[in-house]
Amino acid sequence: MLTVPEALESIIRHSSRLEPMRVPLAEGLGLVLARDAISDLDSPPFDKALMDGYALRSADVREGAARLRVVDEVLAGQTSRRTIQSGDAIRIMTGAPIPAGADAVVQVERTQLETTGTQQIVTITNAGQVPPGRNIMKRAESLSAGTCVVPAGRRLRAQEIGALAELGQSRISVIRAPRVAILATGDELVPIDEVPGPGQIRNSNEMMLAAQVRQMGAHPVMLGVARDKPDELLARIRQGLEYDVLLLSGGVSAGKLDLVPAALEAAGVQQVFHKVQVKPGQPLWFGTNRIESVERSHSLGEMRCYVNTGGMESEESGPCRVFGLPGNPVSSMVCCELFVGTLIRRLMGIEPAIPQTFRGSLTREHFHGGNRPTYHPARWEWTDYGGRVEPVTWKGSADLSATVAANALAIFTEPDRLYPADSVIDVLVW
Amino acid sequence: MLTVPEALESIIRHSSRLEPMRVPLAEGLGLVLARDAISDLDSPPFDKALMDGYALRSADVREGAARLRVVDEVLAGQTSRRTIQSGDAIRIMTGAPIPAGADAVVQVERTQLETTGTQQIVTITNAGQVPPGRNIMKRAESLSAGTCVVPAGRRLRAQEIGALAELGQSRISVIRAPRVAILATGDELVPIDEVPGPGQIRNSNEMMLAAQVRQMGAHPVMLGVARDKPDELLARIRQGLEYDVLLLSGGVSAGKLDLVPAALEAAGVQQVFHKVQVKPGQPLWFGTNRIESVERSHSLGEMRCYVNTGGMESEESGPCRVFGLPGNPVSSMVCCELFVGTLIRRLMGIEPAIPQTFRGSLTREHFHGGNRPTYHPARWEWTDYGGRVEPVTWKGSADLSATVAANALAIFTEPDRLYPADSVIDVLVW
Repeated sequence: MLTVPEALESIIRHSSRLEPMRVPLAEGLGLVLARDAISDLDSPPFDKALMDGYALRSADVREGAARLRVVDEVLAGQTSRRTIQSGDAIRIMTGAPIPAGADAVVQVERTQLETTGTQQIVTITNAGQVPPGRNIMKRAESLSAGTCVVPAGRRLRAQEIGALAELGQSRISVIRAPRVAILATGDELVPIDEVPGPGQIRNSNEMMLAAQVRQMGAHPVMLGVARDKPDELLARIRQGLEYDVLLLSGGVSAGKLDLVPAALEAAGVQQVFHKVQVKPGQPLWFGTNRIESVERSHSLGEMRCYVNTGGMESEESGPCRVFGLPGNPVSSMVCCELFVGTLIRRLMGIEPAIPQTFRGSLTREHFHGGNRPTYHPARWEWTDYGGRVEPVTWKGSADLSATVAANALAIFTEPDRLYPADSVIDVLVW
Repeated sequence: MLTVPEALESIIRHSSRLEPMRVPLAEGLGLVLARDAISDLDSPPFDKALMDGYALRSADVREGAARLRVVDEVLAGQTSRRTIQSGDAIRIMTGAPIPAGADAVVQVERTQLETTGTQQIVTITNAGQVPPGRNIMKRAESLSAGTCVVPAGRRLRAQEIGALAELGQSRISVIRAPRVAILATGDELVPIDEVPGPGQIRNSNEMMLAAQVRQMGAHPVMLGVARDKPDELLARIRQGLEYDVLLLSGGVSAGKLDLVPAALEAAGVQQVFHKVQVKPGQPLWFGTNRIESVERSHSLGEMRCYVNTGGMESEESGPCRVFGLPGNPVSSMVCCELFVGTLIRRLMGIEPAIPQTFRGSLTREHFHGGNRPTYHPARWEWTDYGGRVEPVTWKGSADLSATVAANALAIFTEPDRLYPADSVIDVLVW
């Protein structure tokens, strides 16, 4: 049985980032830039006023005071044709280009304007030191033409969107986000707006998984419920294989009604691994429908398949990766967070793709029973001295209310151990 | 001039959460639940098998071994009509109800089945201790009918969506997200896909602000550019007032071409405050078009207006809150992060609405010039011993590339001070 790191590594090995696509800039938020974004211009493209006020020669201001002739006015979006001589000032707005001859701007709050006929005189007082460059941003000070402003591989936030807009990139090349089909399986499931009959439960996993997928930045597609009939299951799985990823909820544990593995095989999906040493989520199944060449190695009782494409897996080939997720909601959620999340980040080009943990100390002692590494719902808090983590009361893999109380998963790896308060452990923060 | 905390407090005082609306569950992600979600059922609704295997009487297993008659089979979604007697076992699938008389499940991996004619015998070996309750989740163990599962006021994540689905809440009542109109102003602006002429710049703020608004969970509406003409500006502002929030980019500093304040007044928008002691972003303007009664107090040179509605501001009235944001991109971004973010969270019912900072220590010394509290773009990293923060090179309020290199804002409040390495400061993490 694979360990969690081995399973994550296997997912990475069996996937690569999706192809780039061009989108309007506004749609790039949250996606990964496919090509370096290079500045086409100096920014600012001219020496520019940082304040509303008067452009002047700094040498004309002595002890914070001056009396100057106002020879022109430059609004934002305009340029002055005048060159400033000693004794001149030009009224200027924030963002406007500095006129020739001027080397500083004194802000309007330090000035007083007198108008006599067509003649305007500005009096500056209490302006303090006015060195050359005061209130001016030099051409290319922020950026020179040719500079890489946003590197390929960067996931785009608002600041990158703003920087790309400055560069004039109204359409950008990004790695597209995967479409993730979600198919719940099982005769016991009823739609969430129905009252379950004897032995039935509501199909809550589909909604939950869709929300997780959306939080990760991918596009969920809900395929509804497939009943426990081989033909129906096969048809719905084939439908799901049209997408980049197929999540099957339920039907992967060892029971004889677990028809999912057989239906997957019939649909041409080959197993990469089945079962992971993890709690909750041990029955996790992972496979793909495009393994070009398969090596089988029987080790530790399970079959593993390896992609052998010489490291050149095509980005255009469009394989579907398939997860069989356990049916219990917390198992399903944790597997989605750990394993599906890794695949989605890998496909989207987000690095690192594997889950990033933090170290934190336990607020109180915790007994970890059993020998499987356990991802226990927990409350996480950042403090001035590092992270603190408190496992929440958790009644097992069907107890979703524990996760509602949680904002993290505390990771307990040592079998049958009492972790004392203040033990430092790894934590996955949601 | 208001301090940052005073300005945030004023925004809170002049706003309240928007009205609730009913949406399909899947659309509730990221929104705040308006009413407590109460369980309509016990969960699980019956004692349920946590493993595929055999339901039996725990007393029948001695030293991990037993040989039992298989009297029935329960699939998920079914119930058994048989009652288990001593010596009986019933084949059971994960999630199925435990048959009467059984008090434990032994997992299928520990069993072997022999079939002789119609008779089936299961042999259990190496099952270890099988106490009553083994591999069974008791009815209502996760949740009893009547319990509050997701409290009103909770912002919905995947786990809450899953829990609400379990409760059968296919439609939920949430606080709606505000629609935020964005209007850039200025004759100097050209569309982002054009090459700016002399004195012109690209309209990058609109895209950036829209991305920030979307990241915050609200709905941006881009209104384009209003030119520096009073009539055009007034018409476009009136259009913007149809939304919950109007962001004006540019046109709020002291220059005489800053027509925005006059146009806002003409449109019936009353100033709440103008200018905040902050760098970047000092010229920030905030107002609303629905101040029922106004007290004017001239203090520190600016006019402030107060809402006086006896704390009963109607949720239905639909006022528009208006920000005039400075035109420089970093000023605009920081003001959006601090002030617009606070308003949006307040309208969405997210608590706390004001920005949450962390404490972290400087990786190297930093000189903070000037006397305005400064939000300096910085790299933030969590370590095992707390947060570490490194200010990035930042050339002022037009230098958006500094924010591309940053994932935080380091807050320097003490005027003209050299902060030594390892100084502990407040940090706003993006």
